[in-house]
Amino acid sequence: MTEFIPEGSRFHALSSPFPMKRGGQLHGARIAYETWGTLAADAGNAILIVTGLSPDAHAASHAGNPAPGWWEPMLGPGKPIDTERWFVVCVNSLGSCKGSTGPASPDPASGQPYRLSFPELSVEDIANAAAEVVRALGIGQLACLIGNSMGGMTALALLLHHPGIARAHINISGSAQALPFSIAIRSLQREAIRLDPAWNDGTYDEAHYPESGMRMARKLGVITYRSALEWDGRFGRVRLDSEQNGDDPFGLEFQVESYLEGHARRFVRNFDPNCYLYLGRAMDWFDLAEYGGGEAIAGLAKIRVQRALAIGANTDILFPVEQQQQIADGLRAGGAQTQFIGMDSPQGHDAFLVDYDRYGPAVRGFLDTLPPH
Amino acid sequence: MTEFIPEGSRFHALSSPFPMKRGGQLHGARIAYETWGTLAADAGNAILIVTGLSPDAHAASHAGNPAPGWWEPMLGPGKPIDTERWFVVCVNSLGSCKGSTGPASPDPASGQPYRLSFPELSVEDIANAAAEVVRALGIGQLACLIGNSMGGMTALALLLHHPGIARAHINISGSAQALPFSIAIRSLQREAIRLDPAWNDGTYDEAHYPESGMRMARKLGVITYRSALEWDGRFGRVRLDSEQNGDDPFGLEFQVESYLEGHARRFVRNFDPNCYLYLGRAMDWFDLAEYGGGEAIAGLAKIRVQRALAIGANTDILFPVEQQQQIADGLRAGGAQTQFIGMDSPQGHDAFLVDYDRYGPAVRGFLDTLPPH
Repeated sequence: MTEFIPEGSRFHALSSPFPMKRGGQLHGARIAYETWGTLAADAGNAILIVTGLSPDAHAASHAGNPAPGWWEPMLGPGKPIDTERWFVVCVNSLGSCKGSTGPASPDPASGQPYRLSFPELSVEDIANAAAEVVRALGIGQLACLIGNSMGGMTALALLLHHPGIARAHINISGSAQALPFSIAIRSLQREAIRLDPAWNDGTYDEAHYPESGMRMARKLGVITYRSALEWDGRFGRVRLDSEQNGDDPFGLEFQVESYLEGHARRFVRNFDPNCYLYLGRAMDWFDLAEYGGGEAIAGLAKIRVQRALAIGANTDILFPVEQQQQIADGLRAGGAQTQFIGMDSPQGHDAFLVDYDRYGPAVRGFLDTLPPH
Repeated sequence: MTEFIPEGSRFHALSSPFPMKRGGQLHGARIAYETWGTLAADAGNAILIVTGLSPDAHAASHAGNPAPGWWEPMLGPGKPIDTERWFVVCVNSLGSCKGSTGPASPDPASGQPYRLSFPELSVEDIANAAAEVVRALGIGQLACLIGNSMGGMTALALLLHHPGIARAHINISGSAQALPFSIAIRSLQREAIRLDPAWNDGTYDEAHYPESGMRMARKLGVITYRSALEWDGRFGRVRLDSEQNGDDPFGLEFQVESYLEGHARRFVRNFDPNCYLYLGRAMDWFDLAEYGGGEAIAGLAKIRVQRALAIGANTDILFPVEQQQQIADGLRAGGAQTQFIGMDSPQGHDAFLVDYDRYGPAVRGFLDTLPPH
């Protein structure tokens, strides 16, 4: 079991015991986070970023860790999320393996990794843990809460269950409930991992690691994170050099196959398989309709936030843009002054990690209109 | 190695040797086919149907096999493809395992199944084999050639390489070339099969069968054959009875997961894994741009057919509707009187197998306008 903790991470010790929504509790758990900029004396300039399934808290470089972060072009001095104005916090999700407590972390009761003995994880637990970090940093109310992808779910849970935690909200490629296409994809990813004999009911180690299962799961993820349109332009039918192909009639032949292989290779040993299972299932379970009498839109309307921006990509097949439109509609019904932007980005669900020409100005424009604290 | 031959199949012995596009040749190979209706004295009322990846030649029930076929609502007396007017032939593709020769068939040289010694299969080979059946039945020119999905590729190859083989053509959910998203999906399906230790480089048997790999491959296929929109309405977030779920935290929980499982279970032992690999790769390789100086549209424009109808579903993510629009545009550039219909069917790539309210009238309407022979 490996945890992958960025340099310069800071940690918040969660309240202990930390109760979990679906039952059970954690003892001695922690959340890894990083910060940028300076918190104002009145703590009024704080932004929290909650992430998608796989990122760590290292959203951008800083003095404690100069390596580029996963949202480097968006976050820093003079950038769309301008750290000369804002104090920014990014948390690694509870249940992940990037410094926060999750299935790969040692269970203090035994000293051994939790593995499948980790309690069932829900998006609400991830949100509750993030809320503790906000409070611990002395932030009474966030100026803005930003969530991408799974983080869009986490942000909605945060807003609903911690009323007043933020004045404004940006939801990017998010969703108020998991729908069956995305559940099917994640179910198949989990099946790939669980079918790998090396997964061994979660008791793998570095020498016996479910590499094939993770590779399949990651490739399937990448396929659904992008779009056919982008790939037509990017890869077309370009083939690899014949020498890469070799004699295997079913080996890699097209550039798109090699691209997937490269993505998978970079991922499989850098994310814990059990954490992947837990976080994917948490997304499947997420459903704001639970709080809205069976209607997601009614659950959204229970959220109180002053201003909101929902952004989606028209090419997203995993969290279709109708889901971000629904978030905007629901938050508006709850009283927020709300804007929705459907981006013509070709990059699908991942557009917010690629299409900075569109996402940068949209996020900057919204933040610029927030009143001075 | 198992072949799955419908009752009442007829067989055509291919010319021997039968040369394959990418090298090698087959000896003593055959094509399974079925027919409906009566061939006119002038043989002018013939329709050929070429199929998608998995179907057999049993498109509909007939006296020799009363079981419903895979296109039962479309084909029969008074139905959209009216067998009181038309003599209809459906062939099982070369390389399949439903009666035609393929990797699961015995190699006459050894008496053992070909397995991976089967020569590389191309869509053009499938088309050439189908053309032989047409000629052997005494049909000089088809009144109409109908191809669905992979069969849409086969049909285009037939028209291009056998000029004059058909007066009219209906291309449903077809494509003039494989694009990277669909290549990626099929590549991942093949990887799932090949990673299954029981695949064993193609030398499995009934007792040691790559069941898990085939299950993964089929589930991934079904996910891409339908659409998120359809599943939202059909499954939503409905859960299974808790007793089906059991205690496994990663077991089946949502209806959509059970639906995929059911589809997979019905498929995995009814289609030969090696044939699946060969047919998928044949689709990846298919590219009419080879015949059009690098442009698919120019390849299409080399086809000579009098009238054509291209139909697609707006929700198809595997063969997007732009590909059927391209087929219409290219055939029109080649001189055909051409119609394109983008259907608002929610069922995605598989809509032609489900949405008979839309596809029935479209096919019937086109066939009704064909001149009497």
